[in-house]
Amino acid sequence: MQKSILIELTKTPKTKPDQNNLGFGHYFSDHMFIMNYSTEKGWYDPRIIPYAPLELEPSTMVFHYGQIIFEGLKAYRTEDGRVLLFRPDKNMERINRSNERLCIPPFDPGFGVEAIKTIVSVDKEWVPDQEGTSLYIRPFIIPTDPYLGVRPSNTYQFIIILCPVGAYYPEGINPVKIYVETRYVRAVKGGVGYAKTPGNYAASLKAQVEANQKGFTQVLWLDGVEKKYVEEVGTMNVFFKIKGEVITPSLEDSILAGITRDSALQLLKTWGVPIRERKISIQEIYDAHSQGTLEEAFGTGTAAVISPIGELSWDGRRISINQGEIGKVSAELYRTITGIQKGVLKDDPGWTVEVK
Amino acid sequence: MQKSILIELTKTPKTKPDQNNLGFGHYFSDHMFIMNYSTEKGWYDPRIIPYAPLELEPSTMVFHYGQIIFEGLKAYRTEDGRVLLFRPDKNMERINRSNERLCIPPFDPGFGVEAIKTIVSVDKEWVPDQEGTSLYIRPFIIPTDPYLGVRPSNTYQFIIILCPVGAYYPEGINPVKIYVETRYVRAVKGGVGYAKTPGNYAASLKAQVEANQKGFTQVLWLDGVEKKYVEEVGTMNVFFKIKGEVITPSLEDSILAGITRDSALQLLKTWGVPIRERKISIQEIYDAHSQGTLEEAFGTGTAAVISPIGELSWDGRRISINQGEIGKVSAELYRTITGIQKGVLKDDPGWTVEVK
Repeated sequence: MQKSILIELTKTPKTKPDQNNLGFGHYFSDHMFIMNYSTEKGWYDPRIIPYAPLELEPSTMVFHYGQIIFEGLKAYRTEDGRVLLFRPDKNMERINRSNERLCIPPFDPGFGVEAIKTIVSVDKEWVPDQEGTSLYIRPFIIPTDPYLGVRPSNTYQFIIILCPVGAYYPEGINPVKIYVETRYVRAVKGGVGYAKTPGNYAASLKAQVEANQKGFTQVLWLDGVEKKYVEEVGTMNVFFKIKGEVITPSLEDSILAGITRDSALQLLKTWGVPIRERKISIQEIYDAHSQGTLEEAFGTGTAAVISPIGELSWDGRRISINQGEIGKVSAELYRTITGIQKGVLKDDPGWTVEVK
Repeated sequence: MQKSILIELTKTPKTKPDQNNLGFGHYFSDHMFIMNYSTEKGWYDPRIIPYAPLELEPSTMVFHYGQIIFEGLKAYRTEDGRVLLFRPDKNMERINRSNERLCIPPFDPGFGVEAIKTIVSVDKEWVPDQEGTSLYIRPFIIPTDPYLGVRPSNTYQFIIILCPVGAYYPEGINPVKIYVETRYVRAVKGGVGYAKTPGNYAASLKAQVEANQKGFTQVLWLDGVEKKYVEEVGTMNVFFKIKGEVITPSLEDSILAGITRDSALQLLKTWGVPIRERKISIQEIYDAHSQGTLEEAFGTGTAAVISPIGELSWDGRRISINQGEIGKVSAELYRTITGIQKGVLKDDPGWTVEVK
């Protein structure tokens, strides 16, 4: 792989958006990273160019057969003006797990981290500094053969775009209401649930829309075989604290191996909080609630970091968790992870990578 | 919906490809149809323009969340030079079933048929006339909001492109070898299997590649819950003739409702062949083979029309069906459907639509 990244700077820098009204996913920085792949050359021609439309024939496989993977991570501005990435190596490793499932050629994770550092460095001024803001980084790989027919593409583009963001949920760190989905299925054993690929998100849309209409922020997914075991919540991994023990579903091939999930588990271990990764049924959670032992529930994900769950609704039965308040463990995880991300707390686990 | 389709003809028509070496999916005609959607205007601005790249920001939702649907149908050249479409109304109806599952706004199927007729009429010279050739028509809908975040898009494009093709499988009408997939799953009850959406095809790639490596043309999918019941074969519906009765899996929400499947069922009924749509397990098929009552197996789909199955391999056990030869029912369905499509046989069911 060619290691030197060509940089072509924009001649028409954009006006930066108001940091108080960023929302999520609306604004994009001045540049983007692109690298091509062909069967003959492997990954080649890494370059940073002005952010601009992609030109793709309508026959390009990206529009037809879903052989796409993506990632999401963030860069944070510290109080003293430095820029920190949070565990970018983990996202780049996960790309290869997604690639393998989607028949996309493998990728050098170390070079991926270099690419992220370089593009963020070029657009460093786009990393916002207001409370709750960050620069969302979206690497993705698309198949680019102009061809109709179901087979892996022979050519690809790896692209990184940057997006200054505020909070993902309007609720922020306030507890959300979650609908336990019993009709629609996101992923199943033997499928692509553990890969970060568009099909998983497309499959989740209808349940999410219907849950929103009923007044819920997200859905809690159950396994696709027995509709019994808890898998994920919306686009996050999920944790339950029962009788002092923090339980999260073990990683089956239908569950995305979240990096915030891994970070939360590591911190809890350090703190001496008992943790278990195992199958957990929705019935067990409701039973714990009846017995008064369901102490907390929360989701973990890059977009929202920690999202406390204040209410669950399963099959018409609504339960309130921790009186709809944020729990101690959720709050402490949020404080610690965002503190490390923003450089406010000491980075004992060595998770942050500074962009020079 | 605005009904008049603006037409802008190309000033640089392309050279047409050699009809003897079309393959499948490689060549595209001179024009394409595009129509836009916005929440305010609904579907608007239908137009035929020269075939050209789409320009889409890298943040466009089409690259990230898989909210895409597509269709596939064919136009055929008759011996006397006319051009016939095969059941285009069925494809346009299916778009709305796919749209509903993917949270894409509904669409006027009648106008969809008009759009197909108009674009095929404009590129009529691209409909090949050699034996086994046709013009493959690919309508698809992509989400076009430049936005990162999991929700339905507010804007879309409906596009139709045209592709002169030969046989989909190199085997043509010769029987194919099929691998019964027991590890990977294409779709599951509660998922999106019945919708024609890229995620289903992305999920199928790895199994297909591994089956190809083992010397098989396609995989036979089993249900995602029990891995017991037969669902589809590759990108086709599947039929088995056992003791004189033709059986095809009943349409669960994990199975695509194929239009060739429907046509085959209608013809068999007309011919007085006993048919059953029901759950059928792979064990039952193997048992029938042991008892000498498995007479034929075949797939149905737009790309290949009828594809006889000469061999199955399940869990290390290989069986040959009808001595690896094309069966009577498969052959007669192929002869009749392609005969109607090409205008050689009388179109008693009223399936063809002439493009003037």
